[in-house]
Amino acid sequence: MNSGQALETLHRIDREYRCLEKAAAVLQWDQETCLPAGGVEERAEQLALLEGIAHERLIDPETGRLLAELGSVPENPRGDRALPEPERDFLRVTRRRYERAVKLPADFVSAAARAGGLSQAAWAGARRANDFASFLPHLETMIDFARKKAAYWGFGNGAGSLYDGLLDIYEPGMSASETGGLFAALRERLVPLLEKISLCPPPDTSFLKQDFPVEQQAAFSQRLMDYLGFDRGRGRLDTSAHPFTTSLGSDDIRITTRYFPDNILSGLFSVIHESGHAFYEMGFPPELRGSCLADGASMAVHESQSRFLENVIGRSRSFWTGCFPLLREYFPRQLKSAGAENFYRAVNEVKPSPVRVDADEISYSLHIIFRFELEKRLIGGELAPEKLPPVWNDYTREYLGLESETVADGVLQDIHWSMGSFGYFPSYALGNLYGLQILKKLKQDIPAYESAVAEGKFSLLYDWLGENIYRWGCRLEPGELLSKITGEKLSVNPFLEYIEGKYSELYGF
Amino acid sequence: MNSGQALETLHRIDREYRCLEKAAAVLQWDQETCLPAGGVEERAEQLALLEGIAHERLIDPETGRLLAELGSVPENPRGDRALPEPERDFLRVTRRRYERAVKLPADFVSAAARAGGLSQAAWAGARRANDFASFLPHLETMIDFARKKAAYWGFGNGAGSLYDGLLDIYEPGMSASETGGLFAALRERLVPLLEKISLCPPPDTSFLKQDFPVEQQAAFSQRLMDYLGFDRGRGRLDTSAHPFTTSLGSDDIRITTRYFPDNILSGLFSVIHESGHAFYEMGFPPELRGSCLADGASMAVHESQSRFLENVIGRSRSFWTGCFPLLREYFPRQLKSAGAENFYRAVNEVKPSPVRVDADEISYSLHIIFRFELEKRLIGGELAPEKLPPVWNDYTREYLGLESETVADGVLQDIHWSMGSFGYFPSYALGNLYGLQILKKLKQDIPAYESAVAEGKFSLLYDWLGENIYRWGCRLEPGELLSKITGEKLSVNPFLEYIEGKYSELYGF
Repeated sequence: MNSGQALETLHRIDREYRCLEKAAAVLQWDQETCLPAGGVEERAEQLALLEGIAHERLIDPETGRLLAELGSVPENPRGDRALPEPERDFLRVTRRRYERAVKLPADFVSAAARAGGLSQAAWAGARRANDFASFLPHLETMIDFARKKAAYWGFGNGAGSLYDGLLDIYEPGMSASETGGLFAALRERLVPLLEKISLCPPPDTSFLKQDFPVEQQAAFSQRLMDYLGFDRGRGRLDTSAHPFTTSLGSDDIRITTRYFPDNILSGLFSVIHESGHAFYEMGFPPELRGSCLADGASMAVHESQSRFLENVIGRSRSFWTGCFPLLREYFPRQLKSAGAENFYRAVNEVKPSPVRVDADEISYSLHIIFRFELEKRLIGGELAPEKLPPVWNDYTREYLGLESETVADGVLQDIHWSMGSFGYFPSYALGNLYGLQILKKLKQDIPAYESAVAEGKFSLLYDWLGENIYRWGCRLEPGELLSKITGEKLSVNPFLEYIEGKYSELYGF
Repeated sequence: MNSGQALETLHRIDREYRCLEKAAAVLQWDQETCLPAGGVEERAEQLALLEGIAHERLIDPETGRLLAELGSVPENPRGDRALPEPERDFLRVTRRRYERAVKLPADFVSAAARAGGLSQAAWAGARRANDFASFLPHLETMIDFARKKAAYWGFGNGAGSLYDGLLDIYEPGMSASETGGLFAALRERLVPLLEKISLCPPPDTSFLKQDFPVEQQAAFSQRLMDYLGFDRGRGRLDTSAHPFTTSLGSDDIRITTRYFPDNILSGLFSVIHESGHAFYEMGFPPELRGSCLADGASMAVHESQSRFLENVIGRSRSFWTGCFPLLREYFPRQLKSAGAENFYRAVNEVKPSPVRVDADEISYSLHIIFRFELEKRLIGGELAPEKLPPVWNDYTREYLGLESETVADGVLQDIHWSMGSFGYFPSYALGNLYGLQILKKLKQDIPAYESAVAEGKFSLLYDWLGENIYRWGCRLEPGELLSKITGEKLSVNPFLEYIEGKYSELYGF
């Protein structure tokens, strides 16, 4: 077999695997948005079966043989240097995925998928019922599966902790100690900033404390998608217990949000956040279509796109200059006496909340940092899951100065652990760092970017992101991508400068 | 291997196959209700892959070996007489399915699935654009696939026509000539009846010719589901271009409808019709769960359930005695001056329509009969697909005395051919026959059934249907089931007696 044929076979296996994953993603999307209560168990069986079949494709021994034939080895995963660059990137990603997969027994993979389905359903029920106990056995199971997974990959045995192995899923090469270092530097400046702000007079937010009917919020969200330039021919918006983005195909990228009649900001900013994820997915170039390279560089880079759109754009003065008049069309009574500047100030109110997705930009990172500490301890076996509710409250008090009121809005607020996604949370805070570091370059290249945002003209922005980020898919590792754009390593400084600049102006110190 | 182990292996293969089919059904449901336009092609690829994998499971040579070991042979498909009855029924169904599947090459199956996905999407577009030409190449492809399928099964070569082979998919053992005989007997009495009625003064339907906002119709449909006793914990209602029912799991049965602001009856009766299908699916007993026996006895028996609920119940005086006040709550302005008796008469107006799903009970069967004639000719190669629009018009004129106005409401009105479901249409008219023949027995067993319907108490009815029909799944062939309930063979008489009795009273002759 020559290298052309070998690559062709690898691509065929990859396409089939991706296709199965997308089919499973349809079942998962449906589970979160549509599934009747009675269907939960059978859906878990269906997903376990699909994941099992996909896993079989992934561990096809042919893949191992072909990788070796093409010169891809652990020390040189990109393989033969004579191959075209995109193929070498394809080999790197294929090798990483193959090595991960062959180390997991098929039984384990399908049992984990089945348990994940049941666990998510139990989480949703427990959250509704504000009942941690009914979720606890599922949480224990998911922790156990996560620990075993990292152990199968060889972590926890000298070459990094079990938790390092989970972090590496989402942020290749990032260790718990590096993450801890960045987070310590963040915490050091964010906690005093939060205290300083708590002494300042708060902005007027009284006009937000009204009834915003859910139907009107849903109608505005559809309008907001159009305003942001979301292509409805390639995606859609639905509601679910926890907002998410999922890609069911290159041209079928779906986002979800949720609405609360007494909190218009929650649903609205989730739409902007998830749109940021969606634009990344929609921006992978046609030549990567259906391939494993049509994916985010890492979860943190993915979160950099969503949190950038949500916060740096969506919570900017420029954005609301253009968008507030639109919002007022949907809520003329509620927003009669408010203006764009009021709204801008109100949506940037720094007021720690027990709920992460409702948190301001400053306390948000602190939410992440304590989740990172907690999951590191859970996976390390230093914290027993049944102790979680009181310990959660201790952390909430220590980091945010808050008392948790319910487990539903406390330890049960996030879906991640119910899915077994330990190691995911840090991505959000790392995403902020990537986003702001990238913004520095963007501002150099497009000085007019703020006025474009004020006019609701986002294509300039998306084009730049497309050229610098989207088009790479996951061809580059996150560090390589950041270095290609900025010439630098990941750092907390651009984010902290942005935060300190924005909030000192807002709070006048 | 003893017979217990052999059966266990067959059941495991069956469960896995069913699970894959349900996963594919989720993708199909999503395609009809949610899929963004851009996702069509990739969805077709996903479905083709899943169908291909399911087909591999189906043709596992182990199945052939185990069937033989258990004594199941073409002459005695139920196998060893010492086995328990349900297992013997399981062998019969497994053999039928296995024999069908092994005769189809895997490439053919996955190509047909892919073409079906594209064809359905093309049909939906063509229908919107009222453009037959853009659908024609897909129709030709689907006819070709259907002909080839029947030929693979050995039809068209002495042992029955190609079309017989397609009919047999939906109504095991029913030939085109038997169907033709029943349909001729129907036509002979329905056409003169239609003419007789056309000379009578029509009922007052003016109050239906108003604006019924789609949102209110959707709200009423949800209420109607509750009124009918639809368990929302085990299913849901959505909208799609063409109403359908699909089972995504034993406890996840979904129905769809569509709404027209100028026609409240269309959406409403589709909800009742599809609920009839759904109750059948929801009524299979727990011991058949996840097995191939948890299915309708045939498509006509399935349609007997939906058309019975839609027409015999849903278009009865008793039903609207109870339900009309509810409907008026949702449309107080539009229905101010109408009463239950007016409504009953109006929904039974005999007025041939070019659209099958809007047809009255008499012309409905005529719609089916000419579709049967047309598809017999298309499959037999006696009618070229490109000739279809004018020939459709000829049939519409001859059977219904109507001129078709558009292809969208003419030859493009039904989804069936776009899916390659040739041989399906007769099930609707045969379903009427089954339904009315079964009703005779139901009335003997439950004399109070009409007053229960008037009070909106349907559980008496569902319990009887459960005991006599649902609980069998497809353990019995349709003829066996009918004979077990009524002791008779399928006949046109109970249906014609019902029709003639009902409409002579309504039209006063």
